[in-house]
Order: sequence, then structure tokens, then C-alpha cells
Amino acid sequence: MPEFASDSVGLVAPQTAHFDAPLALACGRSLPAYDLVYETYGELNASRSNAVLICHALSGHHHAAGYHDANERKPGWWDAHIGPGKSIDTDRFFVVSLNNLGGCHGSTGPCAINPETGRQWGPDFPMMTVGDWVHSQARLADRLGIERFAAVIGGSLGGMQVLQWALAYPERIASAVVIAATPKLSAQNIAFNEVARQAIRSDPDFHDGWYAEHGTVPRRGLKLARMVGHITYLSEDAMGSKFGRDLRTDDLNFGYDVEFQVESYLRYQGDTFSTSFDANTYLLMTKALDYFDPAATHGGDLAAAVAPSICPFLVVSFSTDWRFPPSRSRELVDALIRAGKSVSYANIDSPHGHDAFLLPEPRYQAVFAGFMDRVARDLALEDK
Amino acid sequence: MPEFASDSVGLVAPQTAHFDAPLALACGRSLPAYDLVYETYGELNASRSNAVLICHALSGHHHAAGYHDANERKPGWWDAHIGPGKSIDTDRFFVVSLNNLGGCHGSTGPCAINPETGRQWGPDFPMMTVGDWVHSQARLADRLGIERFAAVIGGSLGGMQVLQWALAYPERIASAVVIAATPKLSAQNIAFNEVARQAIRSDPDFHDGWYAEHGTVPRRGLKLARMVGHITYLSEDAMGSKFGRDLRTDDLNFGYDVEFQVESYLRYQGDTFSTSFDANTYLLMTKALDYFDPAATHGGDLAAAVAPSICPFLVVSFSTDWRFPPSRSRELVDALIRAGKSVSYANIDSPHGHDAFLLPEPRYQAVFAGFMDRVARDLALEDK
Repeated sequence: MPEFASDSVGLVAPQTAHFDAPLALACGRSLPAYDLVYETYGELNASRSNAVLICHALSGHHHAAGYHDANERKPGWWDAHIGPGKSIDTDRFFVVSLNNLGGCHGSTGPCAINPETGRQWGPDFPMMTVGDWVHSQARLADRLGIERFAAVIGGSLGGMQVLQWALAYPERIASAVVIAATPKLSAQNIAFNEVARQAIRSDPDFHDGWYAEHGTVPRRGLKLARMVGHITYLSEDAMGSKFGRDLRTDDLNFGYDVEFQVESYLRYQGDTFSTSFDANTYLLMTKALDYFDPAATHGGDLAAAVAPSICPFLVVSFSTDWRFPPSRSRELVDALIRAGKSVSYANIDSPHGHDAFLLPEPRYQAVFAGFMDRVARDLALEDK
Repeated sequence: MPEFASDSVGLVAPQTAHFDAPLALACGRSLPAYDLVYETYGELNASRSNAVLICHALSGHHHAAGYHDANERKPGWWDAHIGPGKSIDTDRFFVVSLNNLGGCHGSTGPCAINPETGRQWGPDFPMMTVGDWVHSQARLADRLGIERFAAVIGGSLGGMQVLQWALAYPERIASAVVIAATPKLSAQNIAFNEVARQAIRSDPDFHDGWYAEHGTVPRRGLKLARMVGHITYLSEDAMGSKFGRDLRTDDLNFGYDVEFQVESYLRYQGDTFSTSFDANTYLLMTKALDYFDPAATHGGDLAAAVAPSICPFLVVSFSTDWRFPPSRSRELVDALIRAGKSVSYANIDSPHGHDAFLLPEPRYQAVFAGFMDRVARDLALEDK
């Protein structure tokens, strides 16, 4: 029997939910049938009121906490915040974490077989939006017998899904935790995504997205996309203090081999990603980011857009996040306040840039745990 | 006879200076012989004291002002600041502007023939440093009979050359104008350069730099490199106000064709660049940026590094420049002050990010022209 830390959810196993009813999508197409892969941590209570949904970010998946086997090197991606006694306390909450549609970790996506053609979906997989994801997540909640989530929680692209939940299913979300997110991408955000997409799409091994049928993988493109992404995830200061201008070897080699540590780090990150992530999925996820803009259908008025929401919000930003800076979180906070909603906001001092939302940091944990504590207390009152 | 504006230098023609004496380089190699292409504007005075040197940035060249022919669509890259009555007033100064060694606009570089092999230098062209460039520029000054420049002036990578002039040839530079520069790249700056390099080097058409011999051009890589670069040249605000989230067409197309204006802009910039700039030159120029760090040989003490300089400095930064932010200019200013040097510093409010150094802006022009006016007055006193 392997030993896990007492605040770990320990061994976990993914499950699959199959859906036969077609899902109508924002792009006008419809997904005839699909699978969603998910994990759960903790126990659903008798009144089915303690469920919490975790929404993942660009390159995330369902494996948010614990270990798939005793030899797994690293736990799930949000293990710092999910477990017994942690911010998302699995002694109190039943946590549901899924891989989104279009993903490449088991849920139906470009790597799955298109039943109509018998070949992989590949680039024919329909474009997804945050709204489509939330719709599919609501169906998963139905399947699990969860009428209303005690909280829907996510960082970055995950935070956008949380906001969408509060707008699309206000009766089904008791509280919303939006971390390191933005109500819409800036032109610069879109520009970085476009570079990543062009890197992938111009890789000769991409074959217009049919690389699997060609027996190739657009590794160069994926690597470049990830390198660009990584620069935007880290703060300039974090990169500076982590690598500075330190050389890999004692001297400059006046060539194009790695000279500075930061080059080595980026190449390694890019190489690792390029062998583990699906290119069509990456393209699709960046597009979902670009499209999200709930204010657009309200003449740009975000306060009008958030009017349908009825749950209290926790909004968290990080001081050195330049991908989605604190000012973007404050736009959301201001709109919620103008719309007369209940919102708590914390800007956390952290040197870690956008990546801070994944890391443990005392004030972040205190704010997060404090809000979740209120969520749990409200539940207890309701369940009495 | 074509008509040019009265503050234009009008028609100009490049000249070539050939050098036969080998140039010893920082990388340990030596360039046996080389050409430097340059332009001049204005007249050298009798005492040869009114010469000003312009140093170019990453993708710059010798054509800084005026027109090569009457049909040229755009004037030289710094025409906003060079001409009769402009900040660099050609009624008073004799302006010298060259293409640096390693460039792809006529000076000896990777596209030139290596006399030892009879084939193009290509990737065998030796790595250049800012110090090597300044050394080669001093030889050009010798050739032109210029003992001392009234001013050496440059923005971005050009500003680094100015600083190097003040350290390497203190007696030959009467004043230094360092605009939108930095005394060394940050880890993030190096990271962006590394993405650009990887984009070029991983393009299958790159052929380890021997693309000319393969009859190919690494267009995809150059395009990506330029797209990444462009994001860092513009401020987030400038990008936002220029493009916002405006769509290219009326509706989202839910595909990978251009949807947002900013995508169209970036692709266009990248495509144009990829047909006009040499990949080996781009690689070499980014490396010269990465290497520059005059404090490194002084234990990181920039004040000690600038000790040899004796000329007054003007240092200019721009409020929204996030490639080389104002804080990086202030590092240089602080070091100069600590070292007891004469330095004027202006941080110019501009929405245009790093690109602001190329543009006309009233306060920028006033500061620049004011400093150059002092340079001219000092000259007049000396010449009496």
C-alpha cells in the first residue's frame, strides 16, 4: 500500500461518461455523441449539495489532484489546492474535474474517431467555445445527479468557464471562483495566440491538421507555441531571478547552441510539450480563448452581461501576471459591483506571474480557503 | 526634378567603403576583408568636427533618411528625425549612417561571398558583437577623415552601440544619444530572441543556414520571428487601440482564417519581412543583442563599466515600451550618475511602445533637438 501525504487525495482513477444526445454548438454544428473523462475526489453528500466543479486552462485536463499510481512522479495539476484540509477541502466537498471537449486527454476531441467517417476527427473537429464547454459540463452534472454546484472554480481559461457558468446557469452555481482570468482577451493576448497557431499550422508536418494520417507530428510548431506561451506565463522578474543572464557553460560559445540558461529551459519545456499534447487541440483551445467575450452581445457593457448571475464571486489576480494582469480582473470586479452582485476580490502579491494561480502562496491560500469555508458554511445551513 | 518636402534630405545614394585590413572579432575569429555600405546627409565642415553617426537597430540598415529615387514609397527609417531643421539637423551636421557588418543590405554579411571558399558565407559568417560593430564603425570614421564624432546616436540595439562607443573610444565621441535601449537584455528579452531563433532554425527550409545553396528561403521561420518581434515592439495599449478585438469580417468564421484584425496585421508584417530580410543576419543580430553586457567584465557593476566615458549623454525612454522599459534606461542613467558623468534623461509619454523611438512626438523631438542644439553650440565654440 503506497504512502501518500495526509493532505493528498491519494490514488485516483479517471472515469468516462458517454453522451448520446447531440450537443448543439456555437459554431452552428453539432456533436452527435461524445465522451467526457473526469475524476472525482471526496464524497458526494446525501443532499448532493457539496459538489464543486474544477474547470481547466489551456493545456489542462481532468487529472487535477492525487496520483494515478504510486509511481507517478507528480500529482495532478492543482494538487496544491485540492485535498483534505486544503483550500478545496475534499473532507467537505465532492470535487469533479473533467477534460473539456476538444481535449486530448480522453474526452472526445480531434484525436477521437468521427463516427460519420470512421477516421479521426482531426481538423474537422468542430470549433469549441467556452459556452459549449459549460453546456457539456452541465450535462455531466445531470449525469452525476448534481442539480447545483456549491462552487465552480477555475484559473485562466478555467476562470472564463466559471464566469460563463454564472451567466448561463445561474440557478446551478452557488458560488463562483474566478482566478487569474479576464472577461475577454486583449489584442496582445490574441496576437500571442496567433503566433502559436501560425507556428503549428506552418509546420510542414501539420498537413492541414491531418498529421496523424500522415504519420507525422508537428513537433516544431508545438514546441514554438509552447515556448511563446511559457514566456507569457512567467513574470519578467520571475524569469530574471530564475535564470538571469546565467550561462549554461562557463563561456559564450558564439554559436546557436544553448548559451543562456533561459534558452535551455524554454527548449526543454517546448520539447516536452511537443511530445505530449495534440496540435489540433491546442489550436482549438486558443480559439476558445480568443472568442470569449460575454460583453460583446451587450454592446460591450460587461455589467449588463453579468446581470443574469446570482451567486457570490471570488475574483483573484496576481500582481506580476502580465498575461491577464490585475487590471483585467478588476474590470470584472467593477462590472459585478456595478451590476449589484456580491464579489470579493484579492490581488495577491506574487513574483510568479500568471503561473501563480497553480502554486501555493500563503495569502492566496488564505483568501481561497476563507471563501470556500463560507461556501461550506452556507451549505451546512441549507442542509439543516 | 522631383519635389521633396523642404525638411527632407531629398535624393540620397548609398556608397561603399572597402576595407582590406583584417578585423579581429570578439568571437576569436577575424574577418579578412569587408565592405561597409553607408549614406551621408549634410556637409562635413572644414574642421571635420560636425559628423554624427547613426547606429541602426535589429532589422535596420544604412538608409536612414531621404529617398533612393523619386518613386520610393517611404523615406529612410529615421526620416522623422533627420533632415533640414529636424532633431538631427542636416543644415548643421554631417550625418553618417551605415549598414552593420553581418547585415543584409550591402555590407559584408552572411549573403556575401567568403573569399576563402568562393561560396556564400551563410552560417559560417562569424558571430558579431556590438564591440565588433563599433570597431568597424571607427574604421569607417578613419576612412572618412572623422577623428571625433560630434555625436553618436541610436535607438534600441543602436543605443547599445552608442554606449559601446563611449566606452571603447571615449576620445572619439563628443556626445552620446542612447534611445529606448538597455545596458543588457533581461532573461525575458533573451527568451523572445530564442523563440525567434528557434522558429528560423527549425524551419525545414533553413538547411542549417545553407538555404541559399538549397534554393530555399526559411520564410515560415522568418515570418514567425517577425510576428513575435512585432508584439514586443508595440505596447499592449497601442495594439488595443489600433486593433482592439475588431473582426476582419462581420462575423466569426469559427476557423483558422484571419478573424481578428490583429491577426491580419501580424501575418502581413511577418510575410513582408520574410521576403525581404536574410535569416542568417536575423540570427546574428539577435545574438549581438543577447551578448551585450558591458558590466559583465566589471562584476556586474555598470558604474564601473561606464567609467572610461567622458562625453555627455542623453538617455531617452518611452513610457509604454515594454521591450526595453524606462526602468532599463534608468539603470544606465543611475550608473552614469554614480560614475560622475554628465547625463540628461527624459522619459517620454507615448502610447506606441518600443516603436516610439522611430516616430515623431513633440516632447521627444523637443528633448532630442534641444540636446543636439547644445551639441551644435559646443561645436561652434570649439571651431572658433
